[in-house]
Amino acid sequence: MADIQTIKRICGDGGWVDGGGAGAAAFTVDQREKFHGRAALIAMPGSAAEVAAVLRHCNARGIGVVPQGGNTGMAGGATPSAGGGQIILHLGRMNRIREVDRANFTVSAEAGCVLAAVQEAAQRAGLLFPLAMGSQGSCMIGGALSTNAGGVRVLRYGNARELTLGLEVALADGRVLDGMNKLRKSNSGYDWKQWFIGAEGTLGVVTAAVLRLFPDETHARTCWLALGGAGDAVRLFGDFRDALGGALSCFEFMEGECVAQVLRTIPGVRNPLVKNYPAYVLVQSGAQSAAAAGGEILPALLARLLDEKKILDATIAAGEAQAANLWKIREAIPEAEKKRGGYVKHDISLPLSTLADFMAESRRWIAQDFPGAVTAAFGHVGDGNLHFNVRLPSGADAGAFTEKVYAEVHAHGGSFSAEHGIGQLRKKELLAFKSAGEIALMRRLKETLDPNNIMNPGKVLD
Amino acid sequence: MADIQTIKRICGDGGWVDGGGAGAAAFTVDQREKFHGRAALIAMPGSAAEVAAVLRHCNARGIGVVPQGGNTGMAGGATPSAGGGQIILHLGRMNRIREVDRANFTVSAEAGCVLAAVQEAAQRAGLLFPLAMGSQGSCMIGGALSTNAGGVRVLRYGNARELTLGLEVALADGRVLDGMNKLRKSNSGYDWKQWFIGAEGTLGVVTAAVLRLFPDETHARTCWLALGGAGDAVRLFGDFRDALGGALSCFEFMEGECVAQVLRTIPGVRNPLVKNYPAYVLVQSGAQSAAAAGGEILPALLARLLDEKKILDATIAAGEAQAANLWKIREAIPEAEKKRGGYVKHDISLPLSTLADFMAESRRWIAQDFPGAVTAAFGHVGDGNLHFNVRLPSGADAGAFTEKVYAEVHAHGGSFSAEHGIGQLRKKELLAFKSAGEIALMRRLKETLDPNNIMNPGKVLD
Repeated sequence: MADIQTIKRICGDGGWVDGGGAGAAAFTVDQREKFHGRAALIAMPGSAAEVAAVLRHCNARGIGVVPQGGNTGMAGGATPSAGGGQIILHLGRMNRIREVDRANFTVSAEAGCVLAAVQEAAQRAGLLFPLAMGSQGSCMIGGALSTNAGGVRVLRYGNARELTLGLEVALADGRVLDGMNKLRKSNSGYDWKQWFIGAEGTLGVVTAAVLRLFPDETHARTCWLALGGAGDAVRLFGDFRDALGGALSCFEFMEGECVAQVLRTIPGVRNPLVKNYPAYVLVQSGAQSAAAAGGEILPALLARLLDEKKILDATIAAGEAQAANLWKIREAIPEAEKKRGGYVKHDISLPLSTLADFMAESRRWIAQDFPGAVTAAFGHVGDGNLHFNVRLPSGADAGAFTEKVYAEVHAHGGSFSAEHGIGQLRKKELLAFKSAGEIALMRRLKETLDPNNIMNPGKVLD
Repeated sequence: MADIQTIKRICGDGGWVDGGGAGAAAFTVDQREKFHGRAALIAMPGSAAEVAAVLRHCNARGIGVVPQGGNTGMAGGATPSAGGGQIILHLGRMNRIREVDRANFTVSAEAGCVLAAVQEAAQRAGLLFPLAMGSQGSCMIGGALSTNAGGVRVLRYGNARELTLGLEVALADGRVLDGMNKLRKSNSGYDWKQWFIGAEGTLGVVTAAVLRLFPDETHARTCWLALGGAGDAVRLFGDFRDALGGALSCFEFMEGECVAQVLRTIPGVRNPLVKNYPAYVLVQSGAQSAAAAGGEILPALLARLLDEKKILDATIAAGEAQAANLWKIREAIPEAEKKRGGYVKHDISLPLSTLADFMAESRRWIAQDFPGAVTAAFGHVGDGNLHFNVRLPSGADAGAFTEKVYAEVHAHGGSFSAEHGIGQLRKKELLAFKSAGEIALMRRLKETLDPNNIMNPGKVLD
């Protein structure tokens, strides 16, 4: 109790929530409600110095610290253990946008800034912060960087890692490293910020970052394509990338089942086509002029693809409302799947050169070994990322199914975790699919940076 | 001597060059001839397994290993110490392009592949490998990744780090880590490849990599602009970026002195403008169509910029020969400066928002404290990188000058090493400008991965 009093004192009035109180559940349960933890305290420091002071105390006393932002993670990475001895370190009070530097195309933001707030700050300066995903209204920058978040524009702008120029990090021992430089190039010693991005809070706490901004895509084109399946989507991606080059921003794939589920359960969305098809792709291009966004070439491209039977039907959004409807279908898929329930979920990635084979082979072995299973895969096919979600028939062994999926992904050169990370959910797979040498190297870094194992214990590595 | 015999045996016939022989100088002296080392042997292993075997032996025996590729580095990072006890580990025999995966937009290449060979392999598949720099005809992939090389297209495509998807690394203890995945997204544990990129061979040896490819820029526009100075260049960059967005590939700045020096000393280049100006910018855009590359908007943009006196003159290359002439001027600057001699060189970067101030203030203090000095700065202004080269009057204190430059760079939020790295040349500055916490963190990683300090000893950190 003395420890908790000390941490409360560091964070000051309004800087904590009681771990045992009614308000704690919003922090101790993950958003998918798969992981239920308990926390001795939810500490809400107001500055990097306070974060450091909390860590210093916990390091000295061996108290586990679970960093948390918007609590939107998919792998239980921000949920404390069930024991109740860990504290949650919530970054939400550190939500200041320190600077938008228009000339330098950068924004400096604290870890607790909501992603949408950073997007809006960029927009007010006439620029684009391209990190974008379904959770953008509540996820926070610190979490986005700690999980190396992806989303719908990765194929053009990269993951959170590629968008980060500078980083401020509080280490387990209570020191703060100031790497808040605004430079696109600085080969000056080991680039230590890379160690903390994607480390899920197990090596230190991201307290602020300098992020890259881009010219806004003032002219956009959004198309909706109907096609025969995932194999066609991969080939189409090549066609669109060759035609649009760097102006291609998003290339989202959806199996027919996903779209049908949305149209059935989500109010206010309209089917953009007259008929239903096995699969769809949502394509978006963006640039500084209609011509550069492909305004002239897209109609001809779609006509050719229809002629060649590479697509079965297509529509180009005639305005923002139509484009918004297309995006609403895509973005409502997780909600629709949640409403329906019963999906076994996998966040996988594959080389584009094996993705079509993987999907075709999956169809075969699922039909054979799990008859009655319904696949509802969707995702960012432009960067090889599929949310491979499947509704199994009642009584089927979900564990065996997932094991088979990951074995197939591995055999096709893919990853069992594309963008969701390891957290608590995929620790077993990490050990199964990484080599002993890789695991040993990861452990050595963990021991070097967090010798007392206070940083998000039980996540990523045990 | 027994050690050398063992290493020779590992590498086999034709797999080594004698350290004492006449052929050794090509390996033991850096290309700028600033660093003169001696090597007990130049070992040339033919595979990752042979690299690992050499490292295992050297680790057991405490022999320093200096990895080397094309020996084109600017900071003495690939030159052994003068003592003669270290061996050079030359990757040149590992020069196989393992695969070009057209559908996945990737190439898998061994460390000894010359950069130009990788560019050509991409081109044969109709794709672009965008890493491009003056040394591309001789520098090798392993060195490019180990120094996180930059070059002329960073503003659009990023440094070597951003182009790397997978990595194969041999560790000091003789293990090989196979991380040759071809995935754009894989958040599956710590992304250990990031630790080795840019580490200048002090943590391990890069033996192969999977690299990203892009649609070729089939339509390009190249312009040459005359302007008043660096401040104008930064403002112009904003104009061009806003107009061209993602189609803007290169934005290279040159002070008038650089261009004058090239026109005086390099045969076969022509002045693209009638008069001489204080500074120039070379702009290149590229895309999949003339319109997307800015074909239609560029003439109007240049006319407006002339009207607004933001530029003093301009020309758009009318074809490939004219574009090649413009690039030849830019690329011949280092050669022209070498011919003239006497330049004190600095590879700095600055936020774009302070670059103009830095340049204006430099002009003032140089005129005052070093009268007669001639600045000949050039570089990749689009990403804030300047090669700030200055010819000092005879008798001036070059050391004091460099110290002042770096102090000013630091005061303006910049870096003393943008793309050339630390090597032997900038170790003092690393200690001066990084915080004690950062240095301690770097040392901890070094000690963790290379406890016997055999990996490129005396480079980056002592």
